Amino acid sequence: MIQSAATVMERCEILGAISEESGILVRPYGSESMRRVNEIVAGWMRDAGMTVRSDAIGNLIGRYEARKEGGGTLVLGSHLDTVRDAGRYDGPLGVLVALACVECLNASGERLPFAVEVAAFADEEGLRFGTTFLGSSAFACTLEPGLLDLTDGDGVRVAEAVHAFGGDPDALARADRSPNDLIGYCEVHIEQGPVLERLGLPVGVVSAIQGQSRVGVGFVGEAGHAGTVPMEGRRDALPAAAEFVLAVEEAARRQEGMVATVGTIEAHPGAGNVIPGEATLSLDLRHGDDGVRGSALQALRERAKEIARARSLESSWRVRQESKAVPTSPDLTELLARAVEEIGLPAHRLPSGAGHDAAEVAAIAPVAMLFVRCERGISHNPAESVEEEDVAVAVETISRFLALLAGERG
Amino acid sequence: MIQSAATVMERCEILGAISEESGILVRPYGSESMRRVNEIVAGWMRDAGMTVRSDAIGNLIGRYEARKEGGGTLVLGSHLDTVRDAGRYDGPLGVLVALACVECLNASGERLPFAVEVAAFADEEGLRFGTTFLGSSAFACTLEPGLLDLTDGDGVRVAEAVHAFGGDPDALARADRSPNDLIGYCEVHIEQGPVLERLGLPVGVVSAIQGQSRVGVGFVGEAGHAGTVPMEGRRDALPAAAEFVLAVEEAARRQEGMVATVGTIEAHPGAGNVIPGEATLSLDLRHGDDGVRGSALQALRERAKEIARARSLESSWRVRQESKAVPTSPDLTELLARAVEEIGLPAHRLPSGAGHDAAEVAAIAPVAMLFVRCERGISHNPAESVEEEDVAVAVETISRFLALLAGERG
Repeated sequence: MIQSAATVMERCEILGAISEESGILVRPYGSESMRRVNEIVAGWMRDAGMTVRSDAIGNLIGRYEARKEGGGTLVLGSHLDTVRDAGRYDGPLGVLVALACVECLNASGERLPFAVEVAAFADEEGLRFGTTFLGSSAFACTLEPGLLDLTDGDGVRVAEAVHAFGGDPDALARADRSPNDLIGYCEVHIEQGPVLERLGLPVGVVSAIQGQSRVGVGFVGEAGHAGTVPMEGRRDALPAAAEFVLAVEEAARRQEGMVATVGTIEAHPGAGNVIPGEATLSLDLRHGDDGVRGSALQALRERAKEIARARSLESSWRVRQESKAVPTSPDLTELLARAVEEIGLPAHRLPSGAGHDAAEVAAIAPVAMLFVRCERGISHNPAESVEEEDVAVAVETISRFLALLAGERG
Repeated sequence: MIQSAATVMERCEILGAISEESGILVRPYGSESMRRVNEIVAGWMRDAGMTVRSDAIGNLIGRYEARKEGGGTLVLGSHLDTVRDAGRYDGPLGVLVALACVECLNASGERLPFAVEVAAFADEEGLRFGTTFLGSSAFACTLEPGLLDLTDGDGVRVAEAVHAFGGDPDALARADRSPNDLIGYCEVHIEQGPVLERLGLPVGVVSAIQGQSRVGVGFVGEAGHAGTVPMEGRRDALPAAAEFVLAVEEAARRQEGMVATVGTIEAHPGAGNVIPGEATLSLDLRHGDDGVRGSALQALRERAKEIARARSLESSWRVRQESKAVPTSPDLTELLARAVEEIGLPAHRLPSGAGHDAAEVAAIAPVAMLFVRCERGISHNPAESVEEEDVAVAVETISRFLALLAGERG
C-alpha cells in the first residue's frame, strides 16, 4: 500500500498541474483541462485492466470485471473537476485511491465476486454553472431537466456544454445503467475539517451527510441620528441581531453534532452615525438528523420573534435552502469501520458537514464514505494538504473493505 | 409673535424651493442657489433695518446697531447651506427666527444697549468639500489653512470656490472682527431628535454640545467551513462582535446622558457558509462631559479585549475621530431658560448630540442654543417638519432673551 500511496500522491500532483489557467488550479466541467485529465485517468484505468466509458454527461467510468457475471457492481469514486484556485486533493484523491485499489487487484490477478467500477465525476463543484453535483446527479439519473437551461459566464447552456464535451444531453434523462446491478457506492474524500487532525487519526468513517438549512433573518426597527436619539426609546435593529447571533451559537453548542453559523451580517443604512433601522444576517444550520435540525430551526425562529418582540421590532425569516440529511448505509459503513479496525486503528465516526457526490448516488445505491485527514481542515485552497502515510491507510482500508465485502458475497 | 412665525414658515418655504436640482433640496457652499438665497435674505435684512456684509468666506452678516456705540455685539444665527435631499428647516430656521426678532425691534423702533448681528453661515453641512463648519470656522477664525486645499467632486479647491463666491481666501486667516466686541452667540436650531416631542415641549435649552468618539473595532479569529468545523474549537469572530454590540448598548444605557451606537458591522469573508474569520464594526459614543466619555470609552476598550481573550481572538481598536464637548455659557443659557419660563413653559435642558455652528463660534464667544421640536426627530430629509406654533415660541423666547440681556446690560 506504501507504493500505491506514493503513486496516488504523484498522480494528484500530475492532475493538479492541469488547469485552465497557469499559476492556479481551476478545472471546470467540460473544459480542455478536464478533457486532458479524463484522457490521462482513462489511460491509468486501462493499464489497471479496466474497460473505460464516458456516460451521457461525460463522467469517466472504468470497470474491472467480476470473477463471473451477475455478481453486481460496487462503485468507488469521486470527482475530477475543481473550484477556482483549488487544492489538488478535493475530488481527485477519491478517484485515485479507488484506482490504486483496483491496480492492487489487477497486479495479483485477483477477481472479486462483484465488478468494481471507478467513477470520476465531471462536475461536483459547480464552478461553471453555479449548481453542484451535475456529474453525480446525471449518474444517478436525478438531474432536474430545468438545469439544462442554465448558462455559464459566456452564455453557453448546460446542454450545449454537454454536447461539446462529447456527451449526449438527450440521453441524460435515461439511466446510464440499471440500479438493480448496484451493490453500493463508496467514496474517499479529504475531510475538509479539523476533526481527524485533532484526534490524531488518519481516516474516519462518515456517519451521515448532514442536512442543511440556510435562512435569511432580518430585524426591522427605526433608523435615527446616533447623536440625537436617546438610548431610551431607540428601536435599534443591530443589538437584536447581536442577541440572535449569540443565540445561534448557544443552540448549536448545546446540541451534539450540530453546527450553526452566521456568516454574513449587515446593518442598514450602514453609517457610523446612524442607528441601524434594519439588520440582516444569514443562518446556516446543519445536523445529521433532519428531525433534530427541524426542531432547532423552529426554536431559533421563535427566539428571533421573542428578541424582536422584547425590543418592539419586527423580525423576518426566509428559508433560502433546505437539504435533507443523507444517511450512509449501516451495512457498508459497518464494513468500512471493520476495515479500519483491522489495520489497528479506531474507526472514528463523524458526520460530513459538506455535500458530496455520495449524497446524489444515494438515490440509486447504498453509500459509504471514508474521510482522510487533511492539514488544518483547509480545502478549496492551494494550501490543501494530505500526508502520504494517511493516503496509504486509505488505500489499505478500501482494499480491506473490498475483501470484506467479497467475503460476504463470495 | 404669531405673525412673525407665519413669516418665518413662509420664508423657510421660499428658501426651501431654491436648490441646485429640481425636485429635491440641495444647496452646497458657493453654489448659484446659495448666491440667490443670500441675496434674498440680504434683502430681508435690509428691510429690517440692518446693514449687510459678507465676510471673507461668504457668510452673510446683517447688523442692527445698538442704541449707542461701544455696547458690544450679540450674534444670532445659523446656516443656509443644506445636505443633499434636505429638509427646509435645518439651518434656515435659526437664521429666520433671528431675523424675525430683529424685525420686531425694528418695527417698534427699539434699539438695545448692544448691536445685534444675524449671521447666516455659508457652509455648515460640508456637502461640497466633505468637511463641516467651513462657514462658522472662518467666522471664528479657526479654519485650518490645510482645508483650503480640499477639492470638491469637480476638483475645484476650497480657495477657488471661496474666490468664485466673491470671498477672499487670503483674508480667511485674519479675523473678520475683534472678538472683544462679542457678548455672545445664540443659535436656534431644530432638535433633530425626538426628546422635545416626547416631552410635549415646543422648545428646549441646550446644556452642551456633546463630545464624540468614533472608533473602528475589529475581532480576528479563524475562518473555516460552516459545515465541517465543529462548534467546539471554532474561533468565530462574529459572536465576539455581537457580544461587543450588546456591551455598547448596556454601557450607554447605564450612563445618564450618554448615547452609543454601532452603525456598521461586517463579517469577513462574508459568505453564508463560511465561519467569519474577522468581524469589524463602528462605535460612535457621545456625552456632554469629556471625562465621562473618556472613561466609558476606556471601559469599552477593555471589554473588547476581554471578549477577544475569552474566545482566543485578537481585537483591534482604532480611534478615527474625537471631538471635545462644547459647554454652553452658563450665563447666556440661564437667561435663555428664564426667557422660556417667562412664557410659562418649563425650560427643559438637553444636550445636543449633533454638531452645530455654535461649537465653532464658541472659540471666540460664549454660546447658547435653543432647540425647536421637530416631528419624530427627522432631519436631513425632506420630511423634516416643525409646527408654526413652536416657531412662535422660539421667536418669543429669543425676543425675551434679548430683552433680558438688554436689562442686564442697559
